[in-house]
Amino acid sequence: MKRPEPLADGVTAPKGFVASGIAAGIKKNGRPDLALLFSASPCAGAGVFTRNQFPAAPVRLSARHLASGRVQAVLINSGNANACTGPQGEQDALKMASLAARGLGIARRSVCVASTGVIGEPLPLEKIAGALPSLFPSLSREGGHLAAEAILTTDTQIKQVAFRAEISGDAVTLGGMAKGAGMIHPQLATLLAFVTTDARVDEQTLGRALREAMEESFNRISVDGDTSTNDMVLLLANGRSGVTVPSRGKDYRIFADLLTQVCQQLAQKVAWDGEGATKRVTLRIEGARNRREAIQVANAVVRSPLVKTALFGEDPNWGRIIAAAGSSGVSLALSRISLWIGGAPLVVKGAAQGKEAEAVAARHLKERDIELCLTLGSGKGAVRYWTCDLSLDYVRINASYRS
Amino acid sequence: MKRPEPLADGVTAPKGFVASGIAAGIKKNGRPDLALLFSASPCAGAGVFTRNQFPAAPVRLSARHLASGRVQAVLINSGNANACTGPQGEQDALKMASLAARGLGIARRSVCVASTGVIGEPLPLEKIAGALPSLFPSLSREGGHLAAEAILTTDTQIKQVAFRAEISGDAVTLGGMAKGAGMIHPQLATLLAFVTTDARVDEQTLGRALREAMEESFNRISVDGDTSTNDMVLLLANGRSGVTVPSRGKDYRIFADLLTQVCQQLAQKVAWDGEGATKRVTLRIEGARNRREAIQVANAVVRSPLVKTALFGEDPNWGRIIAAAGSSGVSLALSRISLWIGGAPLVVKGAAQGKEAEAVAARHLKERDIELCLTLGSGKGAVRYWTCDLSLDYVRINASYRS
Repeated sequence: MKRPEPLADGVTAPKGFVASGIAAGIKKNGRPDLALLFSASPCAGAGVFTRNQFPAAPVRLSARHLASGRVQAVLINSGNANACTGPQGEQDALKMASLAARGLGIARRSVCVASTGVIGEPLPLEKIAGALPSLFPSLSREGGHLAAEAILTTDTQIKQVAFRAEISGDAVTLGGMAKGAGMIHPQLATLLAFVTTDARVDEQTLGRALREAMEESFNRISVDGDTSTNDMVLLLANGRSGVTVPSRGKDYRIFADLLTQVCQQLAQKVAWDGEGATKRVTLRIEGARNRREAIQVANAVVRSPLVKTALFGEDPNWGRIIAAAGSSGVSLALSRISLWIGGAPLVVKGAAQGKEAEAVAARHLKERDIELCLTLGSGKGAVRYWTCDLSLDYVRINASYRS
Repeated sequence: MKRPEPLADGVTAPKGFVASGIAAGIKKNGRPDLALLFSASPCAGAGVFTRNQFPAAPVRLSARHLASGRVQAVLINSGNANACTGPQGEQDALKMASLAARGLGIARRSVCVASTGVIGEPLPLEKIAGALPSLFPSLSREGGHLAAEAILTTDTQIKQVAFRAEISGDAVTLGGMAKGAGMIHPQLATLLAFVTTDARVDEQTLGRALREAMEESFNRISVDGDTSTNDMVLLLANGRSGVTVPSRGKDYRIFADLLTQVCQQLAQKVAWDGEGATKRVTLRIEGARNRREAIQVANAVVRSPLVKTALFGEDPNWGRIIAAAGSSGVSLALSRISLWIGGAPLVVKGAAQGKEAEAVAARHLKERDIELCLTLGSGKGAVRYWTCDLSLDYVRINASYRS
């Protein structure tokens, strides 16, 4: 089997998808803030939505439209979350779908919508309505890049990825774009991700593959532990490659692994572009009693502001990592725990390894990509997480977000 | 009944307690770092200890000594946590107790010890041994202030409080000192608190009163959600007032309420002196289904870096508070939720109240003391929490703690 081939594009890499993005004036700073993704034919869809108790209007609408049948387009705005906006927000989300549907000549319920930005302010619908007429004619494969740019908020760079693989000798392509930056934590956050494929996959199989991919991607990243009202991950399959993905077996595995790879790369881009991040951190937990406990320990470590500020300070303050693990609620024995920062074993079976190991770790911490590995010595449970440091800029960005 | 009378001192306000503090050279900056608290007669004791899976050696030792009988002294060092220090750390904690016991002429098991500071470095026992001989002769009532200073780490101010009340016409005094600053979260943190009283109370009653007080004080504060390896709250009663507190009834209530007041004021001082704090925040949750759910929602709000950075930025960004509540895992209906910042109702039954209310809230946020009130409309469960904002200085302090 050939290895999956990375491609330069994102959501428009698979056959039959076009996109575009534009500045509609929703963001005060005049940056692009309205994106449209369109498939030449109706798609099977799968989605994962925020578990926040107050899902924003676009989240509820998209979940309904996804459940009711085939989706063909997604309209996304940044700069305003249309969250906590009451009945008016519901109407505005519906109106967004209507406007896109009318322009594209498809049914309203074939359109999903997504919003991200400030919570609790009415959506400036007239700006969206005003900008849409110039968005439709610009839909193209090349427009994928513009769409990926228009969905960003405090992100510092666009996040897209695409791969091509072979299933039974035929090419299948998956592509995706995402935005993140703040509020990123397992079970989603102000995270929007859109993944497309030209494979033909039934909705049940698609949903199963997406849930599987989530476990190794968007559910394993953390920026600041918050979970937003607006998160969603949408996966659309239009079948344009002519290749059908079965519900199990080798060909399902190829597809599901490729999807995991796309989601994982998008998730890493999100985690590592966390607000104010200066470090790209990969945390491995090994030797937990089971995977659930590994996740619980990882969660405690990646949530710890003390750990994250130490990483920002390039300080191999391993005591904070150990203390965070110890506060996770998982039963642990210090005498069985080891900790590596980069290649340096700072703690081996509970014993500190001294200044020399710390010096090696300190050098590793000066790099951009940081590897932490904590082994618990209790079993075979393991997990990988991606996160970033907590910097002065995180506070600056979030203290002044609305001003 | 007369109202409890506030006193100027701390742990040495109750009869028969003396204390002192000194710079033993444990802290690199030469600040006071060794404190001793001594009672003229043995005390009934009660304690609450960290739930971190890796309790530091002094925590384990103090829990043992407290369980084994009467305690008469507490030796506390700052600058080094003696945590994650293995068998050597156990020996060092025991040696601390021995050194204090020998100098005071009491049994080793009558001494509790506590440490706070950097994790994972060997305790510089020779510095403690060297400084103790000059610490013993300086023990005095006036020395309470010196002890309160010597237990601090990144705290910006001394935390002590004392009250006198009457029980059946006789005066009973309670006093306390605490240190906090980082890692503060419910179920303790790098929190040390020592409370003394000259009431005579049996150990069972003392333990019950302390657990009751914890529920309204140290378990209701949060700085950054971390839980340290070294937390402890110790309560010592030497009976020197001649007043006996019964195990129930009116007089128990007077004592327990006074203890709650002392603990609550210490807890507030800790929360509001959180690392880098610029705001003293009180959060009330009301109308929860029950108290447990109120606590769960409060926890999500006070842990949220997005809420805390908005408070630092004096931004009435109420959407973040609502979103944090919505991510708490408690089932909530937005249409029943109201939120006040100061006197300004920003959200009433799920509906945003607009720019005028926000302007009032923005003015309130410019003050030092911030009141947030979130009503959930689900029942009668309520709780009060104390926290602070997340400032640029929090990151500065924690990125450079060890350097």
